[in-house]
Amino acid sequence: MEIMRPMEIENKSFEIISRELGDRVLDKNCEPVIKRVIHTTADFEYADSLVFSEGVIEKSVEILKAGACIVTDTQMAMAGINKAAVARCGCEVMCFMSNSEVAEQALAEGTTRAAISMRKAAEIEKPLVIVVGNAPTALIELNNLINEDKVKPKLIVGVPVGFVNVVESKELIMKQNIPSIVARGRKGGSNVAAAIVNALLYMASPRDINQ
Amino acid sequence: MEIMRPMEIENKSFEIISRELGDRVLDKNCEPVIKRVIHTTADFEYADSLVFSEGVIEKSVEILKAGACIVTDTQMAMAGINKAAVARCGCEVMCFMSNSEVAEQALAEGTTRAAISMRKAAEIEKPLVIVVGNAPTALIELNNLINEDKVKPKLIVGVPVGFVNVVESKELIMKQNIPSIVARGRKGGSNVAAAIVNALLYMASPRDINQ
Repeated sequence: MEIMRPMEIENKSFEIISRELGDRVLDKNCEPVIKRVIHTTADFEYADSLVFSEGVIEKSVEILKAGACIVTDTQMAMAGINKAAVARCGCEVMCFMSNSEVAEQALAEGTTRAAISMRKAAEIEKPLVIVVGNAPTALIELNNLINEDKVKPKLIVGVPVGFVNVVESKELIMKQNIPSIVARGRKGGSNVAAAIVNALLYMASPRDINQ
Repeated sequence: MEIMRPMEIENKSFEIISRELGDRVLDKNCEPVIKRVIHTTADFEYADSLVFSEGVIEKSVEILKAGACIVTDTQMAMAGINKAAVARCGCEVMCFMSNSEVAEQALAEGTTRAAISMRKAAEIEKPLVIVVGNAPTALIELNNLINEDKVKPKLIVGVPVGFVNVVESKELIMKQNIPSIVARGRKGGSNVAAAIVNALLYMASPRDINQ
């Protein structure tokens, strides 16, 4: 098998994805996000399950270009976000999951570290992008914090995965009047979260071909 | 919605997965791995696509208990592997993807960093577990290195995802006489790779309930 350059592989993958999507019409603005998620998962269900709030792509590009603080609910999602693209946009990425105070507080309250880490995020005063790829408890806590006027993210990427409260937590976020990208249903994941953020970052600041 | 403790959520998720698998009979040894991958992806296709070489679970548990060097093809897979479980088994985890020499060599040779990082892994003299969740080029290079007698991993977790050479690269690895767990077809990912490794680590050394 011939080994190709990374960008050649990516371009060929996107061609295959476009071909297999066939004559399906995707929203032009949302298309790069949908295709990148399919590229990351090889799962075409995302063409149906990703839900975009009105104008979210244009708003996201603007937010990222202005430099936002991106907070993820897992180290994995943080690891998957392209750091060169983050730097080009003047953004920063954080995750509080390995913070020892967060772990202690979660244990004391009988909740998850992900939920507590959303409270830590709410204390940040910069424009916030909240990225949840794993824990529905993070989305539920975020929803509570929004209802209590304790935080107002500029963008929510809500794609936790799983079987307990996952579907419901995403429906809560979609009802908020905040720009959001959500994967309806059980599916999602840290890889999907990172793919969505990367697609938006690449729209905000195109990549060098060697990266 | 009630927020539950992490282990309660996980236990309830596994109950739902077992129920939805219905009367399907899974190999008892492989079951914890299959269920953890479904837990991570909410994708039941993995009950069909995961291919286990003969005796791979018993062999993996033995290898991990003896302390192995686990090398991943992405920072994301490394981030997803439970570090407490790694430490309990006396293992270590490495990833060479952010190594600047690896990047330079990949650019010079017109190949991927993932392929070059497999050559770095081949230089390690400890018992090796190779974990590929993203790049088929890593699996192809690994296959070449095995054929050239330059490396002989104790275990290969081969679950790259995508559209170009992914299916083929996994078939190559399954033909090697090396213990392997592979996700046949296009699907896989860093999250799937980490889930498989974690399932094996938890079998090798059971978790503290609070972790």
